[in-house]
Amino acid sequence: MKIAFLGLGGMGSAMVRNLVKDGHTVVAWNRSYEPTKAINALGVAIERTPAEAAKEGDIAITMLADDAAVEAVTLGKDGIIEGLKEGAAHISMSTISVALSERLAKAHAERGQNYAAAPVFGRPEAAEAGKLFIAAGGDAELIDKIRPALEAMGQRVFVMGDQPAQANLVKLTGNFLITCVIESLAEAFALTAKGGVDTAKVFELLTETLFAAPVYKTYGALILDGKFSPPGFKMPLGLKDNRLLLQAAEKLEAPLPFASIVRDRFLAAIANGDGGLDWSAIAKRAAEDAGFEVK
Amino acid sequence: MKIAFLGLGGMGSAMVRNLVKDGHTVVAWNRSYEPTKAINALGVAIERTPAEAAKEGDIAITMLADDAAVEAVTLGKDGIIEGLKEGAAHISMSTISVALSERLAKAHAERGQNYAAAPVFGRPEAAEAGKLFIAAGGDAELIDKIRPALEAMGQRVFVMGDQPAQANLVKLTGNFLITCVIESLAEAFALTAKGGVDTAKVFELLTETLFAAPVYKTYGALILDGKFSPPGFKMPLGLKDNRLLLQAAEKLEAPLPFASIVRDRFLAAIANGDGGLDWSAIAKRAAEDAGFEVK
Amino acid sequence: MKIAFLGLGGMGSAMVRNLVKDGHTVVAWNRSYEPTKAINALGVAIERTPAEAAKEGDIAITMLADDAAVEAVTLGKDGIIEGLKEGAAHISMSTISVALSERLAKAHAERGQNYAAAPVFGRPEAAEAGKLFIAAGGDAELIDKIRPALEAMGQRVFVMGDQPAQANLVKLTGNFLITCVIESLAEAFALTAKGGVDTAKVFELLTETLFAAPVYKTYGALILDGKFSPPGFKMPLGLKDNRLLLQAAEKLEAPLPFASIVRDRFLAAIANGDGGLDWSAIAKRAAEDAGFEVK
Amino acid sequence: MKIAFLGLGGMGSAMVRNLVKDGHTVVAWNRSYEPTKAINALGVAIERTPAEAAKEGDIAITMLADDAAVEAVTLGKDGIIEGLKEGAAHISMSTISVALSERLAKAHAERGQNYAAAPVFGRPEAAEAGKLFIAAGGDAELIDKIRPALEAMGQRVFVMGDQPAQANLVKLTGNFLITCVIESLAEAFALTAKGGVDTAKVFELLTETLFAAPVYKTYGALILDGKFSPPGFKMPLGLKDNRLLLQAAEKLEAPLPFASIVRDRFLAAIANGDGGLDWSAIAKRAAEDAGFEVK
Repeated sequence: MKIAFLGLGGMGSAMVRNLVKDGHTVVAWNRSYEPTKAINALGVAIERTPAEAAKEGDIAITMLADDAAVEAVTLGKDGIIEGLKEGAAHISMSTISVALSERLAKAHAERGQNYAAAPVFGRPEAAEAGKLFIAAGGDAELIDKIRPALEAMGQRVFVMGDQPAQANLVKLTGNFLITCVIESLAEAFALTAKGGVDTAKVFELLTETLFAAPVYKTYGALILDGKFSPPGFKMPLGLKDNRLLLQAAEKLEAPLPFASIVRDRFLAAIANGDGGLDWSAIAKRAAEDAGFEVK
Repeated sequence: MKIAFLGLGGMGSAMVRNLVKDGHTVVAWNRSYEPTKAINALGVAIERTPAEAAKEGDIAITMLADDAAVEAVTLGKDGIIEGLKEGAAHISMSTISVALSERLAKAHAERGQNYAAAPVFGRPEAAEAGKLFIAAGGDAELIDKIRPALEAMGQRVFVMGDQPAQANLVKLTGNFLITCVIESLAEAFALTAKGGVDTAKVFELLTETLFAAPVYKTYGALILDGKFSPPGFKMPLGLKDNRLLLQAAEKLEAPLPFASIVRDRFLAAIANGDGGLDWSAIAKRAAEDAGFEVK
Repeated sequence: MKIAFLGLGGMGSAMVRNLVKDGHTVVAWNRSYEPTKAINALGVAIERTPAEAAKEGDIAITMLADDAAVEAVTLGKDGIIEGLKEGAAHISMSTISVALSERLAKAHAERGQNYAAAPVFGRPEAAEAGKLFIAAGGDAELIDKIRPALEAMGQRVFVMGDQPAQANLVKLTGNFLITCVIESLAEAFALTAKGGVDTAKVFELLTETLFAAPVYKTYGALILDGKFSPPGFKMPLGLKDNRLLLQAAEKLEAPLPFASIVRDRFLAAIANGDGGLDWSAIAKRAAEDAGFEVK
Repeated sequence: MKIAFLGLGGMGSAMVRNLVKDGHTVVAWNRSYEPTKAINALGVAIERTPAEAAKEGDIAITMLADDAAVEAVTLGKDGIIEGLKEGAAHISMSTISVALSERLAKAHAERGQNYAAAPVFGRPEAAEAGKLFIAAGGDAELIDKIRPALEAMGQRVFVMGDQPAQANLVKLTGNFLITCVIESLAEAFALTAKGGVDTAKVFELLTETLFAAPVYKTYGALILDGKFSPPGFKMPLGLKDNRLLLQAAEKLEAPLPFASIVRDRFLAAIANGDGGLDWSAIAKRAAEDAGFEVK
């Protein structure tokens, strides 16, 4: 399968390497020049515009920063939609809004092009190792067809439904659940610390019993160590995903009280100068509310 | 070690069986007669009052319903405190308030008696299998001394600190974190269900990736199946532990926004007739807020 | 002062009548034909496009449904911006977003046109009686100049600052405070009703003592009587203003926990079929959470 | 009517002066000696115990700090209950819990004594001026009988129901509504301040229009001026009333999301060293969450 890959950030570059390693032919495009050098060195042709890249592919994968970038690269001047062949497919793997995913599905359909969403769970290390988890949404046949490419990038593909936007909704929901873990642990640590308990022992008890899941281990350790910098996922990106979640929830008429609490934590953290830290630094704010500073 | 065991409910009876199996000599007391029969058949002597039972033990373990029961059995007429030998210890294994645990520590110390708290995580099946997790708090030497007894009942003992009440605080915090999982999953399922996604697929994605922990598997399955009856842990007990948590947090001056949201879910659920269901039925309320009924 | 008036809904028509009564020359435009008839009968010329109306005015006032309408009428084809004379001013009196107000200010400035915001507090009866309260934002000289027109429509003008968007922010904040009154009264009535108190007596006590303000009297009476239909201000409009508020707050990095609670009430109310009621019907949801129905 | 008055703090002393001025015969008791001197100088006899004071009265009024004080003075050794004549009445005017009020009603009834609750709204200045608002609960005949005494202390008596505890519930609800005003204004000021608006103008707009009530004027001015010291009503008292409210709400199964938010504000404020300030200083916390300090 010939693949056009749009977006060579930390995640995208790692994903391209795994596609190449798996034997796929890849052409790529990136907004800035620098990241294309290492990818080009793998034998990947670099195209000048999204349209020119898309023209070469059976599928065109986007892995970009946000809605604005995906919209520009897809629907803007020299965008994917102008280059993609009839019957070829755009696979959107970024974390984007439900609304944009719905608009992209419609725009591609009007051109006789296909579209699926396949957002990923995992940090750059997981992308590098081909260990991403992928939530896919779209026509079942299309997903079967692209499955080999997805499996080159991820350790497992979960199909969420035949509407692409359903995968985007699940991705936002997953990030929401992560923030709930962060906030709940932050409250738990603040409380037990004020009770004089060594929170490292609380962490050990939790993660070796009922809460023995990667998400508690990873974020519990970050909070415990106050290791919010360098950020693995920056605070404003966490706020952005929270906003996309709340927007989707408003449209679907689903109240999310936990998400609103997390929203206010993000805002308070950013307003108090922590916008450059990892999103798990909302835990600092829970501690400060209890009257002490996380180390 | 000779052990007096006070409280032969579902949990307590199972714990006694494991103590006997492990070779400990046990005498027991229970408020009502019925449950003592099966325990007596194991060769366990049944005493007429808590004081008389306590008199026989190197340690006296309480496994009772709530603060009121523990207070009555310990400090009331013919209570443990009247029978327990100087130098012997009361081990409180129920989920009780931080404040009561502090009062018990003081009361026993005034009599030259020892006291530790060792609340447990686990449902009756885990108690039966000797697979409880135990959070212990108290004097390190005392805990070392009683460790064989604790290990006969649980699969692992986590020492939280040298103040008994610290273990109680951690126990309440653990239950709080479970309610956060329930509420966050309830919101996640309500949202994705309204987005047309099959929530069984969401559950699978979560519990086979970042959220692969017993707590998500257990409660996710209950919510997904709407299986809130018969209750494993009744709604009003969940509300009670939430209240004890909020009381401890008030004393320690630690705000817990997630706990307050859960509090309101418990109240709304009970006010709407769901007080007889499992505490995970607060998930119904999240669904109803989004305009549909959990099956 | 010659005034172009865009938007002849219930509010706009009433405002035009007061301008005419006060001696201003008005030309008007409305998207649909029907409402223009009564206005035309007052001697007000009806123009075919916003641009043609704006061309006639020293100021052009917009009183339209929402951001989309104001944006289309101002910046769209045949929009105000195309007709308004250099040095003339657009006065936006609708409740619109802070972000749109900022964009309008910029767009008009680029054409050498002036712009101020003057959103209003008050229902149609107040508009009819010329009793609106007006929050004005913009260049002080401009506001002085338009003050006679504003005072023809309102009983008092409050100047919020020299940035137009500041008035929009204050308007959204005012609506937010109204929703806080609704929610707090709803909780208070639900609680006291469950305590067996006649809530009419609670209402009387409050509104004849510390809470003797129009907002408590108006909304308290609506909630008490369960009189949510016909709506004075529809639920989805309340949700929209709440959304605009939360968007502005996010940009300004200001957490608003009360606003988030109100948001979830709107969503729950709409999800449960109450979207056609007055926005004060979020009080029903507070009652239902406490297990009973508002009559 | 002969009145025994128990509790000569700032409020109680002022109330006694008004009773004397109105021609009632008063005997008094206070835990500490100092405040009795000024009252004695009015011709009021000072008794040595609550029981001895109560013995002298047709009614015995309590105006004490909290539940513990009222319980001790009423039910403790030498308490009111031991002295009060059969057919005489205890009128509890402090802000106490619903649960204690119910217990007092029962305890007095068992002795053939009467009981009513008549908690007050108003600060010491209002007490001094005889301008308190009084929420009364209890037997209608009893309240008619004591009405002249109540009217000597307050400007108006509102009868809430024939259960004394109903008046206590309404009093706690009133204080809750005040905290909602504080929090909502705090959020509103934080938001508009960050938007560059002069909050004094926001305050003026609000309090001269829809929100023209004493509660907005009083608390708005305190927040605007950052005048949280000396406290009119101390933060921990605010927290205490919030706790009593939440306890009553739990018993009545009524969720109060706004009250929980206010609870966390109190805790955060106290945890951050503001426990000595007026309860309106929770507004500081809203400002800090938005990243700036109230002056």
